[in-house]
Amino acid sequence: MKRLLCAGLMLGLAACAANPRATGDLGLVVERADGRLQMVESTHSTRLGQISGLGDLSHASLVFSRDERFAFVFGRDGGLTKVDMLEARIVKRVVQAGNSIGGAISQDGTLVAVANYTPGGVKVFDTDTLELVADIPALGADGTASKVVGLEDAPGNVFAFSLYEAGEIWLLDMKDRAKPSVRKFTHIGKQPYDALITEDGRYYLAGLFGEDGIAMLDLWNPDKGVRRILDHYGRGQEALPVYKMPHLEGWAASGNLAFLPAIGRHEVLVVDMTTWREVGRIPVAGQPVFAMLQPGGRRLWVNFALPDNGKVQVIDVPSLSVLKTIEPGQGILHMEFTPRGERVWLSARDSDQVSVWDTASISKVAELPAMKPSGIFFTARAHRMGL
Amino acid sequence: MKRLLCAGLMLGLAACAANPRATGDLGLVVERADGRLQMVESTHSTRLGQISGLGDLSHASLVFSRDERFAFVFGRDGGLTKVDMLEARIVKRVVQAGNSIGGAISQDGTLVAVANYTPGGVKVFDTDTLELVADIPALGADGTASKVVGLEDAPGNVFAFSLYEAGEIWLLDMKDRAKPSVRKFTHIGKQPYDALITEDGRYYLAGLFGEDGIAMLDLWNPDKGVRRILDHYGRGQEALPVYKMPHLEGWAASGNLAFLPAIGRHEVLVVDMTTWREVGRIPVAGQPVFAMLQPGGRRLWVNFALPDNGKVQVIDVPSLSVLKTIEPGQGILHMEFTPRGERVWLSARDSDQVSVWDTASISKVAELPAMKPSGIFFTARAHRMGL
Repeated sequence: MKRLLCAGLMLGLAACAANPRATGDLGLVVERADGRLQMVESTHSTRLGQISGLGDLSHASLVFSRDERFAFVFGRDGGLTKVDMLEARIVKRVVQAGNSIGGAISQDGTLVAVANYTPGGVKVFDTDTLELVADIPALGADGTASKVVGLEDAPGNVFAFSLYEAGEIWLLDMKDRAKPSVRKFTHIGKQPYDALITEDGRYYLAGLFGEDGIAMLDLWNPDKGVRRILDHYGRGQEALPVYKMPHLEGWAASGNLAFLPAIGRHEVLVVDMTTWREVGRIPVAGQPVFAMLQPGGRRLWVNFALPDNGKVQVIDVPSLSVLKTIEPGQGILHMEFTPRGERVWLSARDSDQVSVWDTASISKVAELPAMKPSGIFFTARAHRMGL
Repeated sequence: MKRLLCAGLMLGLAACAANPRATGDLGLVVERADGRLQMVESTHSTRLGQISGLGDLSHASLVFSRDERFAFVFGRDGGLTKVDMLEARIVKRVVQAGNSIGGAISQDGTLVAVANYTPGGVKVFDTDTLELVADIPALGADGTASKVVGLEDAPGNVFAFSLYEAGEIWLLDMKDRAKPSVRKFTHIGKQPYDALITEDGRYYLAGLFGEDGIAMLDLWNPDKGVRRILDHYGRGQEALPVYKMPHLEGWAASGNLAFLPAIGRHEVLVVDMTTWREVGRIPVAGQPVFAMLQPGGRRLWVNFALPDNGKVQVIDVPSLSVLKTIEPGQGILHMEFTPRGERVWLSARDSDQVSVWDTASISKVAELPAMKPSGIFFTARAHRMGL
């Protein structure tokens, strides 16, 4: 059965339909060097097939349709590709910009938005047809054209994003797709480089590269404007060398605590979300890139920039201390938990391998070959905000 | 296409496989009087088909397999039925007790546990085969046979549940299915009648019927034992008439606040989860049954016991006040949100109807006929703990 299914999927034959398959446990692994996606399933940790022809997938990310059938892949070359996982094929591909850096899908699943570096701005597409619905140039208050970063979906078919050069945060309201409206927040800080939205969709936080601190917008109270938090978060006066900017989307809260990879320093910051103050720092093995909470919130998994990108550390949240350090392969770029947290998948780019770990025993349970794997994405993301 | 799909699904023909379908937006509506499930999808709010022959479905609940293909239905008659949603058919049905009251699926999806009234106890089954894996009689420390209530899944393939007559909380560890181990907590309070586990899988809370208060077990620190919280939660000295016991599973947290339907009183309790103290009460239109937070946590939806079971109230969380009262039909038994909260589905048993509401405008967007509908369950539950 499984073999037949794989054959069907790999060739994208209708044959695979003869063996109906659910989509709740599917995932996609980005094979960045080959412009290819590998389709996997997390119940038995196996490969199901692959989809090629997606262009430049370095630093690529993707989102899923609300029925968990389609993926929308954001390529570095500005390509937006709609993939059908049930038939393992590309449905449609549009090159919508020269250089893009990710995107998001609206709360109701009808719109997908892409953040662009070149020429900058945000484009919004219909998820059924990939037709352009809105084209929003990112010109700051002073007329500067900006790269757009940190594009996140917010409740009410709103997209929140940041303008790197202009130092602004914009809220794009697509409730009425015929009349997109933009609310702009200016002077939010120098060079916002990445952002996240809290899991409840309330707080939008943009990390600043040009100065220390984080710009925070409370979407429940936008009239209060953007507030600065964590003034000590950043490279600091010494402007330490930074081998890879940390990703903020890993941010998640355990109780009222949130965890944030430090920039340049070998530390993970602990933040009290009731006061938005730093309440501690956990020493780690290198410059953290992702600091991700295991579903359930009891353990935090951290990967690192060069030269420590062969290590992953598991932190015990109750004691805020490192529980175990593992070396799952060379060039660990990404970590993805199964929806209820019993396992985590790790991509080892320079080992051409994805490994699957049991999170309770912190032991390896499976290995899958993959060519230069980077991002790993499970379909459960379809049901969550800000991913 | 849709019609063809429906036909295929309704008859459970392989025909429907010719039209492959994803499962991320599927749902099941319990038609309690007819022992039937209605299959729906939440993208276009339509009916896809129905599955009959499930026995007595009064007060029935169900859980989903981790791939979102199969449902495990817990019938009041002790029947456990495995349903294949892709083929709209019953895969297997076992009558495993005389009277059951719900169940749960393990974190890794390999085990389903059922809580029984008659003869009492918990039975655990393999989710692939429905073969019996463990049979745990519920005999209290004093030898009393107990009804089992409040069965919830916890991290690590643990099931937590309460013994009504004996007044105990047990943790059933199924990590090694060949050697189930039970940890018992005795004298936790009189007549635990329902329970919940917080979304992070950390706290197990059992409501008490025989006295006021809630028994709480911190699963991160089980050695600390069961602690009593919310001493004023209950019927109180006057022992008010209670027309329908509230359900605790609706409990959800917004920031550090949790909301709990009062027993007997026309109030929703506000609880600070950092201190587990009551910090407020919101007056509502009747005796609340479910108090459920809309994903995003900004609004709380409440339904009521007789004589107010034709009303639903929407509470604004920031101001802790009633925003709107709607009358969606007669006998509102259940509310289910779409995974990212843009819509809510309401079952109106005595109007033979399910209605779909836009949560931003609080306006009705669709109506679906259903015979005496009770529970509504969307597949996204597969990806969450404690549901």
